[in-house]
Amino acid sequence: MLRDRIRFKPLMDKITDADAACVHIQNGTNVFISGFTAGYPKLIPQALVRRAEKGERFRINLFAGASTGDAVDGVLAEAGLVSWRRPYMSNRTMRNRINADEIRFKDDHLSRLSSQVRDGGWGRAHVAVVEAVAITRKGHLIPTMSVGNTPTYVREAEKIIIEISSEPPDLEGIHDIFIPEDPPYRMPIPIYRSGDRIGKPFIEMDPQKVTAILFSREEDSCAVFTEPDTVSRRIAEHILDFVEHEIKRDRMPSFLPWQSGVGDVANAVLSGFLENDFFHTIDIYSEVLQDAVLDLIDMGKVRAASGSAMTLSHKARTRFFNELYRYKEKIVLRPVEISNSPEVVRRLGVIAINTAIEVDIYGHVNSTHVMGSHLMNGIGGSGDFLRNGALSFVVTPSTAKGGKISAVVPMVSHVDHNEHSVDVIVTEHGLVDTRPLAPRQVAEAVIRKCAHPDYRDLLWDYYQRAVRGAGGHEPHILAEAFGFHERFMATGDMHSR
Amino acid sequence: MLRDRIRFKPLMDKITDADAACVHIQNGTNVFISGFTAGYPKLIPQALVRRAEKGERFRINLFAGASTGDAVDGVLAEAGLVSWRRPYMSNRTMRNRINADEIRFKDDHLSRLSSQVRDGGWGRAHVAVVEAVAITRKGHLIPTMSVGNTPTYVREAEKIIIEISSEPPDLEGIHDIFIPEDPPYRMPIPIYRSGDRIGKPFIEMDPQKVTAILFSREEDSCAVFTEPDTVSRRIAEHILDFVEHEIKRDRMPSFLPWQSGVGDVANAVLSGFLENDFFHTIDIYSEVLQDAVLDLIDMGKVRAASGSAMTLSHKARTRFFNELYRYKEKIVLRPVEISNSPEVVRRLGVIAINTAIEVDIYGHVNSTHVMGSHLMNGIGGSGDFLRNGALSFVVTPSTAKGGKISAVVPMVSHVDHNEHSVDVIVTEHGLVDTRPLAPRQVAEAVIRKCAHPDYRDLLWDYYQRAVRGAGGHEPHILAEAFGFHERFMATGDMHSR
Ligand SMILES: CC(C)(COP(=O)(O)OP(=O)(O)OC[C@H]1O[C@@H](n2cnc3c(N)ncnc32)[C@H](O)[C@@H]1OP(=O)(O)O)[C@@H](O)C(=O)NCCC(=O)NCCS
Ligand SMILES: CC(C)(COP(=O)(O)OP(=O)(O)OC[C@H]1O[C@@H](n2cnc3c(N)ncnc32)[C@H](O)[C@@H]1OP(=O)(O)O)[C@@H](O)C(=O)NCCC(=O)NCCS
Repeated sequence: MLRDRIRFKPLMDKITDADAACVHIQNGTNVFISGFTAGYPKLIPQALVRRAEKGERFRINLFAGASTGDAVDGVLAEAGLVSWRRPYMSNRTMRNRINADEIRFKDDHLSRLSSQVRDGGWGRAHVAVVEAVAITRKGHLIPTMSVGNTPTYVREAEKIIIEISSEPPDLEGIHDIFIPEDPPYRMPIPIYRSGDRIGKPFIEMDPQKVTAILFSREEDSCAVFTEPDTVSRRIAEHILDFVEHEIKRDRMPSFLPWQSGVGDVANAVLSGFLENDFFHTIDIYSEVLQDAVLDLIDMGKVRAASGSAMTLSHKARTRFFNELYRYKEKIVLRPVEISNSPEVVRRLGVIAINTAIEVDIYGHVNSTHVMGSHLMNGIGGSGDFLRNGALSFVVTPSTAKGGKISAVVPMVSHVDHNEHSVDVIVTEHGLVDTRPLAPRQVAEAVIRKCAHPDYRDLLWDYYQRAVRGAGGHEPHILAEAFGFHERFMATGDMHSR
Repeated sequence: MLRDRIRFKPLMDKITDADAACVHIQNGTNVFISGFTAGYPKLIPQALVRRAEKGERFRINLFAGASTGDAVDGVLAEAGLVSWRRPYMSNRTMRNRINADEIRFKDDHLSRLSSQVRDGGWGRAHVAVVEAVAITRKGHLIPTMSVGNTPTYVREAEKIIIEISSEPPDLEGIHDIFIPEDPPYRMPIPIYRSGDRIGKPFIEMDPQKVTAILFSREEDSCAVFTEPDTVSRRIAEHILDFVEHEIKRDRMPSFLPWQSGVGDVANAVLSGFLENDFFHTIDIYSEVLQDAVLDLIDMGKVRAASGSAMTLSHKARTRFFNELYRYKEKIVLRPVEISNSPEVVRRLGVIAINTAIEVDIYGHVNSTHVMGSHLMNGIGGSGDFLRNGALSFVVTPSTAKGGKISAVVPMVSHVDHNEHSVDVIVTEHGLVDTRPLAPRQVAEAVIRKCAHPDYRDLLWDYYQRAVRGAGGHEPHILAEAFGFHERFMATGDMHSR
């Protein structure tokens, strides 16, 4: 019975339904929700939408851990209920409304959010809405499949609404909750190895602030798992070959932990370990854990896997819950300020792999804005890991939109990561280690090895003319730097005619 | 007598002169030198130039801590002796040769260099050439006015050439040398307050590797100190007012330590504290310490000042050495991987202030490339501090070249720091705190408050047309994004006619 999940009895009389609970959310309320790809509340958003459908006009400010499901970002954006949204999101409807300036959005490095909220920089934390599998006997919270910023949201919130999820309560113990002191009183974050536990298995909560508890049988909408395609597999192979080679030539130590971004390429890299004999013991210090992590645990290859959330396909989910006791020995879920902490990422020497929208010939990377103006999702944790990792890979298929777009361009139309922070660039065609190269050498190598053959001549032509015309350390013809993008916007194709 | 500085007697027979010493440097030698604005070797570069003047043809790879004086970067570049240079430099001759592709240059975040060198990523460390005030009885080194990467260079070098400087040996004790273990064995860097000492007052050295010792009476070429001008003073006032206001409104704690970049604006901000009663106790956790730090110490306002180097004007230098005993109580000089450590900068909650070449309406920052192509100096530590500081300011006069260039442009021509990492933008006209603003709000505020009045209409016109024409989260007209720059390159003026 879900009622048994409330082990702190004084809270029993807060049990109510979503319609009643959401009276605490009014026009202008700052709503801080749990959720980081998974683990978001499902009932309150629906109840808000019902109110809107009845004709009530109101808009909230929605602050999450990172992306949530359609059940939050999708339905609330669709209903026009969101005034502000922070941080990372990946929902199509919400993206469109952000780009139409109907929703305000600000994009921060995920490692910094929680301390900004504690400083009051995001305004008063009127209401936190959090999903949990249980409330402990002392009135603390056991979260579900993500931690994200929830510990800080719960601490700062004036009111707390809890959705008790029907997910197995034996998730308890997988989380490791630690909120660092803020400067100038901060001390080192005492993680020395991926699997270290430094906190408590629950989120501390003042039960006095709980205004409503709901019971929910809704599940996270599961990630759709696609088998790695040829392009992703090629990219993964390039990376594993390269790292193996570096280790064998004694240019890096064995056993640095891996981080791998969201999406299919990321998952493909981890899947690549399955068939690889060289990498027999793997540490993962990442943000979001996907299906491949379970496969690797099953093979006995994982020493520890740390993240802030798990997004599993339906199939993997069932497997996970069936043998939770076994996976719990390997997996730790942490607040995102810890999973993405520059301090910890640099200390551990993480090998970081993140996906780009486009890269340019000098190694600058766009991960957030299509054609310079239009937000895709946000920077997420990519900056935290790329900048601080011991070795950072940026990966992208060499083309998009059926080949009409080259993902290698003269100049990226928005810069999220620049030449100072990106080590290795990888497409299905090849890989360039930029670390020992000056920018002009990077350009020549990226055009030759990473660009799609269809676009190499065009890129080379631009580069040569820039060298002759402008010269300098990173030669550019400013009037033509976005020529590829302009051509695409004019004709729907980056190829020249 | 300078001979007394060699307290480890077995090294006495290594005393020689520069011409003899520099036989260890041949064509293709990787030369790792001390120096970080100050503290660079002076005799060996001159000897190398003499060899070139005699007709010998050779080129070296030159790796420093950061910028050095004309006596190194200037003369070696002038003589055509440099094949590669890393990292940050600020010498005009060298800059020109880098931009002409006669010298290869790669620009890294300063906090990452030392570990890259230890990993072997910069190639074999053939020779280290380091300036020191003394060699201890156990054969270790006391550096001069900078630490930079010297501890790692000395550790990794196959041969070491030492220039014993005539600077007072009682510099001993000002340095705090700590080389962290590299991943995966790194432990926390145990600095909790700006002034904490965690290492040794000398650089550990294997005396067996010393191949030559020279005596030098050459001084660092001193920084030219200019009294802050009106523009710098206005920028400094905006910053101090803002921080005071934030502290009084309880939006940030008192006593966060300050970092301030190189140059006149940076010095002006620190000078601003002199006449300010609100800030009575200041911690400094910075990279380069300039004159203003001594003034503040004299006023009794400094609790501790930490950096990797000191660049002082001639006047300040004399004062510093006269009362070294007093300044040594307050000042700590550290390796740059510690002074700039993301871990420590974030833990302490540094207030970071760095200068831009140009900023754009959405808050992206160019600190390295003029007109997109031409290297100015390099990123230095600006990325380390801006990204990890608790509050980061980017400052720039609103115009350059007598008003012909607007330092606020539609899109910066090179991105070193982006909207995710920059908090507050400041020119002499005003200040915009971007943290609570979405990009379009940033644009409107930056145009109104930071841009020079001459350029506001042009910027506004671009922005409005971008909003209407492209829309999106950061509206841009890619074909016109560099219109200001193109106009300047065509006419020598960014004003439109
Ligand atoms: C960059 C990112 C959007 C790529 O996501 P993905 O799912 O691997 O990429 P896809 O290939 O499916 O591309 C997503 C969309 O962008 C489009 N796209 C890709 N490259 C493009 C380009 N160069 N120009 C224009 N559109 C492009 C694709 O066509 C696709 O469009 P669709 O949704 O209309 O089909 C995603 O990784 C991201 O948001 N990254 C930033 C945050 C991050 O790295 N987080 C991890 C840190 S832990
Ligand atoms: C950005 C930086 C070059 C500014 O230096 P500065 O000495 O304060 O700036 P100045 O105003 O003297 O400008 C330097 C030159 O750039 C030119 N300049 C400035 N803004 C310009 C612009 N927007 N476009 C073109 N040129 C510009 C100036 O005219 C001047 O040229 P000159 O040497 O021919 O006279 C310098 O701070 C730097 O190298 N920063 C990056 C590293 C850093 O921040 N380090 C500190 C970290 S601890």
